[in-house]
Amino acid sequence: MNREYTVEILGVGSELLLGNIVNTDARDISVMLSEIGINVYWHSVVGDNPARLTQAVEIAKNRADIIITTGGLGPTCDDLTKQVLARAFGLELEFNQEAADRMRQHFAVLNRPMTDNNLQQAYLPAGCTVFQNLWGTAPGCAFKAGESIVLMLPGPPRECNAMFRHCAMPYLRALSEDTIVSHNLRIFGMGESSVEYQLRDLMNELHNPTLAPYAKEGECMLRVTAKAHTAAEAERLMQPVMERVRGILGDYIYGVDADSLEGAVLELLKARGLTFAAAESCTGGLVAKRITDLPGASAVFPGGVNVYSDFAKAALLGIDGELIAREGAVSEAVAREMAVKVRARLGADIGVGITGVAGPDTDGKHAVGEVYIALADEKGVFCRLYILGKTRERVRLAAANNAFDLIRRRLCGLPLEPEI
Amino acid sequence: MNREYTVEILGVGSELLLGNIVNTDARDISVMLSEIGINVYWHSVVGDNPARLTQAVEIAKNRADIIITTGGLGPTCDDLTKQVLARAFGLELEFNQEAADRMRQHFAVLNRPMTDNNLQQAYLPAGCTVFQNLWGTAPGCAFKAGESIVLMLPGPPRECNAMFRHCAMPYLRALSEDTIVSHNLRIFGMGESSVEYQLRDLMNELHNPTLAPYAKEGECMLRVTAKAHTAAEAERLMQPVMERVRGILGDYIYGVDADSLEGAVLELLKARGLTFAAAESCTGGLVAKRITDLPGASAVFPGGVNVYSDFAKAALLGIDGELIAREGAVSEAVAREMAVKVRARLGADIGVGITGVAGPDTDGKHAVGEVYIALADEKGVFCRLYILGKTRERVRLAAANNAFDLIRRRLCGLPLEPEI
Repeated sequence: MNREYTVEILGVGSELLLGNIVNTDARDISVMLSEIGINVYWHSVVGDNPARLTQAVEIAKNRADIIITTGGLGPTCDDLTKQVLARAFGLELEFNQEAADRMRQHFAVLNRPMTDNNLQQAYLPAGCTVFQNLWGTAPGCAFKAGESIVLMLPGPPRECNAMFRHCAMPYLRALSEDTIVSHNLRIFGMGESSVEYQLRDLMNELHNPTLAPYAKEGECMLRVTAKAHTAAEAERLMQPVMERVRGILGDYIYGVDADSLEGAVLELLKARGLTFAAAESCTGGLVAKRITDLPGASAVFPGGVNVYSDFAKAALLGIDGELIAREGAVSEAVAREMAVKVRARLGADIGVGITGVAGPDTDGKHAVGEVYIALADEKGVFCRLYILGKTRERVRLAAANNAFDLIRRRLCGLPLEPEI
Repeated sequence: MNREYTVEILGVGSELLLGNIVNTDARDISVMLSEIGINVYWHSVVGDNPARLTQAVEIAKNRADIIITTGGLGPTCDDLTKQVLARAFGLELEFNQEAADRMRQHFAVLNRPMTDNNLQQAYLPAGCTVFQNLWGTAPGCAFKAGESIVLMLPGPPRECNAMFRHCAMPYLRALSEDTIVSHNLRIFGMGESSVEYQLRDLMNELHNPTLAPYAKEGECMLRVTAKAHTAAEAERLMQPVMERVRGILGDYIYGVDADSLEGAVLELLKARGLTFAAAESCTGGLVAKRITDLPGASAVFPGGVNVYSDFAKAALLGIDGELIAREGAVSEAVAREMAVKVRARLGADIGVGITGVAGPDTDGKHAVGEVYIALADEKGVFCRLYILGKTRERVRLAAANNAFDLIRRRLCGLPLEPEI
């Protein structure tokens, strides 16, 4: 019989209780645990106070099999998580040479002096499994004590997320006899409720694997999860279901286990040996930033221009000032020129031009959220007006997403205006 | 004597434990409570399960004076918060006619039929203060029972936030005499441990106000918090402490209650009527993206170029291909040319050039994390080699941060190479 572990995620940090930050660590960890079928029953948060932290640990011990702490592993005197947890489980803290060496190296690389208080972070519970922190300084760890399994992760979300994925998940996977495997179908251009509506019958009919749709940053994700004794068996269970989903959602699915739309575009371009260049007005560098977030971007992205002003559109791309004056900077004509000219300037296979109103101010002619996106390649120029939302952040995100989706559709030979 | 109330915020909802949503309700309520000097000691989250919710309420009763629940007030059968809380405090639920009338009216306005299960929401604990919900359907409430004060708010963040502000805050204000005010000093170029090291004596000496440093995305934040009968008195207590901190940390402090480095730069440029343009290689649009995230960027940022390839450096800026071949794309000479030429092309007051190795691959001559950042203005060109970390994300974040800090230092007449 496979044991069903229950988890409490215990956040430590007064900044959470003061509302200075939101507890994304608990959310991120919960999402990852759901991927491997471990149930989270409790989230709790306590401040940097040893008495209350001790109390919280006693409660967690009584009601959960696995306690996962986040935060309080840093070098300052209010970082008390290790001390309190070690005491609660009757363990000593021991100096870990490897962790100390890693920290010294981290500071050396940054060319910064390492103050002595940093070494506090190298003291870890005796006999623990150390989670080295490749994303910051404070290492994490895991140990078993009595009936409990304890994991400690640092608080900064980037570090917590990466260490949970790369260190804690393998540790936890090893506790379970059943294997849970899941695949994420990434969907663009169709909302969560539409996806759910289209898949409702299939979802109701399935027990293993299961299907669950999630909304995600202007896109949608569908997770297919199967439980079996081996990963191969789980995969075998999932294949026919994934085929059926593909039959229903078609080319709205842009990837399986893809990291992002830009990641899918990067792979497609690389496979075909093609490049793209972007001329960005309202997105002001967001498309460039997202593609260059990815290692290997240089193979597909020579560069682009952020032409935030009319002057820049003329100075960097040679767009006719009269055209801008006549048609307006936010216009189909200007978007087309941007795509054509950035493609020519950079000798790229595909040029993209994006101009619109991100808000909060408008140009007096268009509402916030109206964005023209043009794509130019050897076949010609395509341009479309998109209506993308009401807040600046949302409009910029959606504009960049749609630009990447346009490139994807062109590379896959799909219609550029999808039927909804 | 003013009683020091302690609060637990108890979120109810399986969607929180699954990680489908992040607990912004707890954050929002914590921020509002800190405004009126009420201490939040615990956040907890439990699923839609009556036994575990009962358990959580018993724990909260024992450790907090005020229990604030969010979620579980809706019309469906897993909305159990009122039933469980009423039972835990020995109260009956009574039908509230006013709440029922408001709900009927809400549906009439939306021109939607009201299904009967909605009326469940009009049953409230006997003798409670009703918080009418002007932003949705489910009303909230507050009651005192024994030593405890209980408040219940609906879960949807917009409703929870508005009802807490407009209904719960007046209810709670009547309980407290003190006000808490805090300011955030934003620090760049000095890590959390160094800040703490430099301020340790001052921190130990202080009781009201208090000082607390936090690490924050490649920067550091120092919170000064004071408690007093009035906001003005709290400000008066903080002023001399903030002066002493400024004396110690000097120009590493880039702003008080500022949102971000780029926000500080935007304000400085606006105040002086100046502009900047950026030529980005390894950051590939990140600087442009961050400044254009902010409304009003067009006043200070005409645009820039993402010159990710050598070809782009030549094609968009006219940088001599021979110079690049001789010195390398990652070199002081090229960074300087980028800053000078992007400034000239865009007629900007300040030009910034960024070229370096973000990794994971290197150019064979520089290690990952080596980045040249140049700043050109009417006074000349400054350029420095930075060593910025090991991961791509970190290097790019730190390079953009340092570029903004360089602009800030130039605008404020500070030394461009700070002493550490």
